[in-house]
Amino acid sequence: MDSNKRPENMARITTRELADAFIAEQIAAIKAQVGNKKVLLALSGGVDSSVVAALLIKAIGQQLVCVHVNHGLMRKGESEQVVKVFRDQLGANLIYIDATDRFLDKLAGVADPEAKRKVIGGEFIRVFEEEARKQTGIEFLAQGTIYPDIIESDKGVKAHHNVGGLPDDLKFELVEPVKLLFKDEVRVVGSALGLPDSMVHRQPFPGPGLGVRCTGAITRDRLAALREADAILREEFDKAGLVGKVWQYFTVVPDYRSTGVRNGGRVFDWPVIIRAVNTVDAMSATVPELDWALLKKITDRILSEVPGVCRVLYDLSPKGPATIEWE
Amino acid sequence: MDSNKRPENMARITTRELADAFIAEQIAAIKAQVGNKKVLLALSGGVDSSVVAALLIKAIGQQLVCVHVNHGLMRKGESEQVVKVFRDQLGANLIYIDATDRFLDKLAGVADPEAKRKVIGGEFIRVFEEEARKQTGIEFLAQGTIYPDIIESDKGVKAHHNVGGLPDDLKFELVEPVKLLFKDEVRVVGSALGLPDSMVHRQPFPGPGLGVRCTGAITRDRLAALREADAILREEFDKAGLVGKVWQYFTVVPDYRSTGVRNGGRVFDWPVIIRAVNTVDAMSATVPELDWALLKKITDRILSEVPGVCRVLYDLSPKGPATIEWE
Repeated sequence: MDSNKRPENMARITTRELADAFIAEQIAAIKAQVGNKKVLLALSGGVDSSVVAALLIKAIGQQLVCVHVNHGLMRKGESEQVVKVFRDQLGANLIYIDATDRFLDKLAGVADPEAKRKVIGGEFIRVFEEEARKQTGIEFLAQGTIYPDIIESDKGVKAHHNVGGLPDDLKFELVEPVKLLFKDEVRVVGSALGLPDSMVHRQPFPGPGLGVRCTGAITRDRLAALREADAILREEFDKAGLVGKVWQYFTVVPDYRSTGVRNGGRVFDWPVIIRAVNTVDAMSATVPELDWALLKKITDRILSEVPGVCRVLYDLSPKGPATIEWE
Repeated sequence: MDSNKRPENMARITTRELADAFIAEQIAAIKAQVGNKKVLLALSGGVDSSVVAALLIKAIGQQLVCVHVNHGLMRKGESEQVVKVFRDQLGANLIYIDATDRFLDKLAGVADPEAKRKVIGGEFIRVFEEEARKQTGIEFLAQGTIYPDIIESDKGVKAHHNVGGLPDDLKFELVEPVKLLFKDEVRVVGSALGLPDSMVHRQPFPGPGLGVRCTGAITRDRLAALREADAILREEFDKAGLVGKVWQYFTVVPDYRSTGVRNGGRVFDWPVIIRAVNTVDAMSATVPELDWALLKKITDRILSEVPGVCRVLYDLSPKGPATIEWE
């Protein structure tokens, strides 16, 4: 039997009971696979890796070594939440690496979107590899692969976007406890494992993080403006009860300035672009008709709270011909 | 008496009768000033110069020589309207100069907003001067100076934004028949003179035209995209009954591209920014809460009809800290 094929009679996990049964089954399977060996996991803070971490903590406790690499392109408060939830609340064996300077120094002056992705992906592997080499006795690598990843890999649409590219002498046996689940099932399992809602229902977030939303060559000041503007957007969407109602929303700060006026003087500052979309399959997407009062509040807050910004725009573009992300 | 000071007892021209009285009075004054001499006028197609042209045609007919310089930065159909109204309908002595190539060649690679303004302003004077030298027997220069221009010049806020900078040997005596009028009075007079509504109620349009809305270094393809998008915006605002209800609206196409997808392939195209503002005094401005259906319709039309564009954005920024124009 192909272990990468979801059995046709497998019930969709939609309830707490089904989730608990899945968790019990996986705990047994993980224990059987791993024994008393150590498992390494790159914990990004995304839904999939978070659920895998919580499952493994339940199954093997301190035998799991979680590595969280803060590449400096996380959203505001995100790395802090990973530490709080996994180290403080779940007692995980968590290694937190602040690699902000390392990533941003490497990215300085790199404007091409594909080149940026390669720098971020490549550097991530190197940081993770260095950490893996410091650990002794690791025989397994856990990954948050989910079923759509497997389907898409089979179709050749994209490679697994989990940890790959480690050198040959660091090949571990894989532990992929949620690889037959769909995203909605992963969330149900995450809730049953006690993960906070903000983590379980976290919006999709690209691997290169804010890096692809700080378009062109990333600078620290523009990245800081992006992070603050994004936090304001998320806070106001949250207050307005839009979490879970709008599929994805974020801000973009392009490498582009326009004229403004502040305190009687001319300024030449960035625009902040609000991007919000609804989609069923991410192949096409529409733009929600937000309340004008909400847009005005977000605009006013960004313009008064975020240094270096003189404009706020709302992206009206459906996918296609636009893409959801800007680069 | 200071001829540049509006008499305190001068009634605001708000009715057809007051406008007709003003017109009769100015026709007599122009005839008295000009006699049988020739008058030169730079006719931009804006409200002020159009009203002055119509007044002078009534007063001195073929003694007026109108020069319309198409600098290639006009909105779609605008130069054509000037020719149609003044040459075809009012029988004016109109010289139409298509200087598109001359301006765009000079502007190639000029990215700095102030440098662009200087190129456009300087080239305009040179084209106008060349035409003035071809004419013989001109003794007067008519200008669409209005009262706010005089007030602002006195305050030192800005120089008269009419024709200035002609060389010393081309100094003419000025004819400025609407220099004591406010903008709303100029419009009432324009209507009384039979000018079309679309000309009399034309939105404010900067001297450098679309040049400051095709931000950065102007290219012909991006300028063409801007002109088409702007025409779509104006047509849809017109259909939606927003003409006169929204103070100013236009599009901007920044020198900036983002990722999109078309026919299954990756594209890297421009965004079109919709800018609409309401203001009382142009010192501050707010953004109108437009109907979502209208925004969607404009977005869909721009994305399907304008080549090279993959996104449409709505500028939510009040003035300040944003300015109404983008550069």
